[in-house]
Amino acid sequence: MSDVRRGDVAGQGQPTLAVVGATGAVGSVMLQLLSTRQDVWGEIRLIASARSAGRLLTVRGEEVEVLPLSEECFEGVDVAMFDVPDEVSAAWAPIAAAKGAVVVDNSGAFRMDDDVPLVVPEVNPAEIRNRPRGIIANPNCTTLSMIVALGALHRAYVLDKLVVASYQAASGAGQAGIDTLYDQVAKVAGHREIGTQAGDVRRIVGDDLGPFPAPLALNVVPWAGSLRDGGWSSEELKVRNESRKILGIPDLPVSATCVRVPVVTTHSLAIHARFERELDLGEVREILRDSPGLLLYDEPERLEFPTPADVVGTDPTWVGRLRQSLDDPRELEMFVSGDNLRKGAALNTAQIAELLAAEFTSDGVAAED
Amino acid sequence: MSDVRRGDVAGQGQPTLAVVGATGAVGSVMLQLLSTRQDVWGEIRLIASARSAGRLLTVRGEEVEVLPLSEECFEGVDVAMFDVPDEVSAAWAPIAAAKGAVVVDNSGAFRMDDDVPLVVPEVNPAEIRNRPRGIIANPNCTTLSMIVALGALHRAYVLDKLVVASYQAASGAGQAGIDTLYDQVAKVAGHREIGTQAGDVRRIVGDDLGPFPAPLALNVVPWAGSLRDGGWSSEELKVRNESRKILGIPDLPVSATCVRVPVVTTHSLAIHARFERELDLGEVREILRDSPGLLLYDEPERLEFPTPADVVGTDPTWVGRLRQSLDDPRELEMFVSGDNLRKGAALNTAQIAELLAAEFTSDGVAAED
Repeated sequence: MSDVRRGDVAGQGQPTLAVVGATGAVGSVMLQLLSTRQDVWGEIRLIASARSAGRLLTVRGEEVEVLPLSEECFEGVDVAMFDVPDEVSAAWAPIAAAKGAVVVDNSGAFRMDDDVPLVVPEVNPAEIRNRPRGIIANPNCTTLSMIVALGALHRAYVLDKLVVASYQAASGAGQAGIDTLYDQVAKVAGHREIGTQAGDVRRIVGDDLGPFPAPLALNVVPWAGSLRDGGWSSEELKVRNESRKILGIPDLPVSATCVRVPVVTTHSLAIHARFERELDLGEVREILRDSPGLLLYDEPERLEFPTPADVVGTDPTWVGRLRQSLDDPRELEMFVSGDNLRKGAALNTAQIAELLAAEFTSDGVAAED
Repeated sequence: MSDVRRGDVAGQGQPTLAVVGATGAVGSVMLQLLSTRQDVWGEIRLIASARSAGRLLTVRGEEVEVLPLSEECFEGVDVAMFDVPDEVSAAWAPIAAAKGAVVVDNSGAFRMDDDVPLVVPEVNPAEIRNRPRGIIANPNCTTLSMIVALGALHRAYVLDKLVVASYQAASGAGQAGIDTLYDQVAKVAGHREIGTQAGDVRRIVGDDLGPFPAPLALNVVPWAGSLRDGGWSSEELKVRNESRKILGIPDLPVSATCVRVPVVTTHSLAIHARFERELDLGEVREILRDSPGLLLYDEPERLEFPTPADVVGTDPTWVGRLRQSLDDPRELEMFVSGDNLRKGAALNTAQIAELLAAEFTSDGVAAED
């Protein structure tokens, strides 16, 4: 079966792709991307939990039936993308790899594994070759929403210190997060008196907070993930640890505060970055303008700066509000926004998978920046 | 007339207060505060623009007619609170002062004037005596939402550097900001498809953005105020300059990024602060727990951290998410929230006015921390 599927019928030598978690929030965006990006794939196999199996989803204009996750799913698969909870990836990614697939995993299960590269194609594409476990990790969406911009500036100026505060969208918590925000917005709408007394929003929103620890409509919630030592959230430590690993600066000082905001999709970050070399703001603009994956959108006199409402659904990281510190010419402030379901998840995964696809084709070109 | 009003009839020796801008968003909260705080005032005179004059507002349980702003309004006034636009304060505060009133001004007109103290009663109360112009300035609401916490820690550890990112509420832009947010939330409610494609929110919200440069519902907007040199917003420079002046550290490095969020009332800030001395987190907690004007709310294992929905309508600055830096023991991260119409505006003004009232009464006590 696998030999038939592999290249001969579906793809004239093109590699077979499996999308595990095809029915989730990131999976939905992935199917859009696979339908609109240059098509490098032979068969595309869609896989989900047994609960979602049998559903028909559209990819590349064709309906495809979702298969239940099983060992057999990975027969003949060249690249397997995983967009599933950590524990599902931890159990199943090694099985897919043992079957011969290269896994691109978007969970947190393998990101800090020394034998698993953590890859952002604009920043460290060559790392995809160092994959002794047959697994490549996709970074956390918050890290991904800023790391392309930081990577470009790091190459020129050498990053020295990072302080970030995030403005994270509901969809970072998956479809349940999106649904919860829509439900809460519908409840608070029309209540023009709320938001002025403590408890108003909690009373109107009710007890169903979905995946969030507090109401999100008309509120901001300084928490994402689970509690770690020292009062840090797991999300804040991911930003720290993943930034260090992707940039290859193991001792980079990083302090993050992660905050959920009532935005459906697109994470933003206020970034304070210090570099080893003094910054030339004109050169900084040139770098950000010319680097792949970035959109410099920084004309405050025309009120142009990134906001999620403009960024959502687009591929690049938007960079704006550039300001050189008034105290230290090595320090830069900026505000970046990126679609957390696209570059923050599905797009980066697709980009890594496409680098791998090139390995499987006869005209394969080594991954380059 | 002024002699009759002053003490003899209304207040048995208690000073006369004028509230200029009584009909605005801050004015409304001020009337609530004046009705619920310990009553130190004789007559309370309510003043607004000619457009709002004649309205009846309730303060201390009594209806009071709003007077149109004029020189005569200030006859016999001991303390005049101004909650009006900068240009109105610039023109009228000196007139009120010339009439003998001590002005407490909540505009930006005088805050950086060397002859005008910028006062936060928990931080620098003694400064109210240095008022050669007869004017005392109330800080910007964003500065006020964090400065009590920073002031308390500065006394113990000496603040060395400050990086902040704000999550500012719509009411920071006045009643028009509040109305705009309610209107936009009503428009986006029920549209469960929006927030996933660029332009969705703009299309549904329409052209009426109120005082904001972009839609605020289901969005965050990295802009507040007007454009200054170097790409900084006026709001960001206020946070910098006012923090330096209030804390008495004229060369303190401060970098702020100010961002509007879809919250009705209560500003929050993610704060990265470096001190001269190494921090003892247990002692930091004690200081924050025991200092006036602060509420330590930092039990993340019980999901306790400040959110605007819980903080709005309360007096203190709520402090949570305390984390000592993993890289430098002199650095602290925290998340603070304060009601921008109360401590951020009306409450701080009322506190300053009460310190002044004590000067006017026979049992006046010098302002102390």
